[in-house]
Amino acid sequence: MSVIDELVSELARLPGIGKKTALRLTYHLLKRSPDEIRRLALALETVADRVRPCSTCGNVTEADPCTLCTSPRRDRAVLCVVEEASDIAAIERTGAYQGLYHVLGGRISPLEGIGPEELRIAPLLLRLRHGQVPREVIVATNPSVEGEATAVYLQRLIQPLGARVTRLARGMPVGGDLEYTDGVTIAEALSGRREIG
Amino acid sequence: MSVIDELVSELARLPGIGKKTALRLTYHLLKRSPDEIRRLALALETVADRVRPCSTCGNVTEADPCTLCTSPRRDRAVLCVVEEASDIAAIERTGAYQGLYHVLGGRISPLEGIGPEELRIAPLLLRLRHGQVPREVIVATNPSVEGEATAVYLQRLIQPLGARVTRLARGMPVGGDLEYTDGVTIAEALSGRREIG
Repeated sequence: MSVIDELVSELARLPGIGKKTALRLTYHLLKRSPDEIRRLALALETVADRVRPCSTCGNVTEADPCTLCTSPRRDRAVLCVVEEASDIAAIERTGAYQGLYHVLGGRISPLEGIGPEELRIAPLLLRLRHGQVPREVIVATNPSVEGEATAVYLQRLIQPLGARVTRLARGMPVGGDLEYTDGVTIAEALSGRREIG
Repeated sequence: MSVIDELVSELARLPGIGKKTALRLTYHLLKRSPDEIRRLALALETVADRVRPCSTCGNVTEADPCTLCTSPRRDRAVLCVVEEASDIAAIERTGAYQGLYHVLGGRISPLEGIGPEELRIAPLLLRLRHGQVPREVIVATNPSVEGEATAVYLQRLIQPLGARVTRLARGMPVGGDLEYTDGVTIAEALSGRREIG
């Protein structure tokens, strides 16, 4: 296999990148200077060398524990449980949350053979039992069947420890259109309706 | 900027990969082992170190001149001129061509400020003048306005040297559907119609 083919097959292992896209990316890279290709290689190596999961929350980080876990400005009375580290980034971008996080590393999915043992649920319970129990645990798993099941599973484990267990609101996405919104979402938006003003 | 952000912005420089896809790819890579990330980094570095344009035809290659240019099995009487090295790969995959190649590195496009000087046209003429003039030069530029203009430009330069200058046939793509084919293509398919059998 030529070095070009090797790069194509490495790129094709990325999600959402098929053989054709990998070929296109490779030929695009080949049109750049070798130094530009090396910059991408270096960025990858640096990440491989330095980024690790935070041993406390599971977020991706260069420092362990991560800056979110150690920050004195975060509200330690609220813990937000998410499926993936990328969900932390999405929530942080909003600037609307000041508490701590815990990454599960996925959601319970019997069909894919993912049970509670495959997720970071034991570390979550350890964290809740051995640290200060937060006032509220927001289970921010995705609004899918599996995310929902995971949330219910966690709620049963966490509530007895004395924390309020909440989940994200369901409803119309901002900028959405009733005509194009699925019925389940509209039903959730109706049942969760709030007083105006 | 964190090392993660640096990787995101390097990935976002690739064509067809926006900020969101770059983030998704980065978080996917972070879920893999560092060694798997290093494999992609190594594939990139190896390509940056070893792959160069062939000084004869402009194809991407580890050996200079490339294996196509030096192969004794290729028909030196036919030369196929393409816009990009990736076009060589596309033609080679068909197995339907046995001649040599020449990569222009783009097409003439006054709107983008790309004139004949920006392309490998002078090396093409040198190659034709100093080597054995091929019996046929197939100008396989893309069937776009610019590709067409480039083909006409090349035809005027090459024909006086004594080679037959041809271009790829226009017509219905195999597996295409008349109903969904643009009018220009149908018109080309009509004017280029051939006897059955």
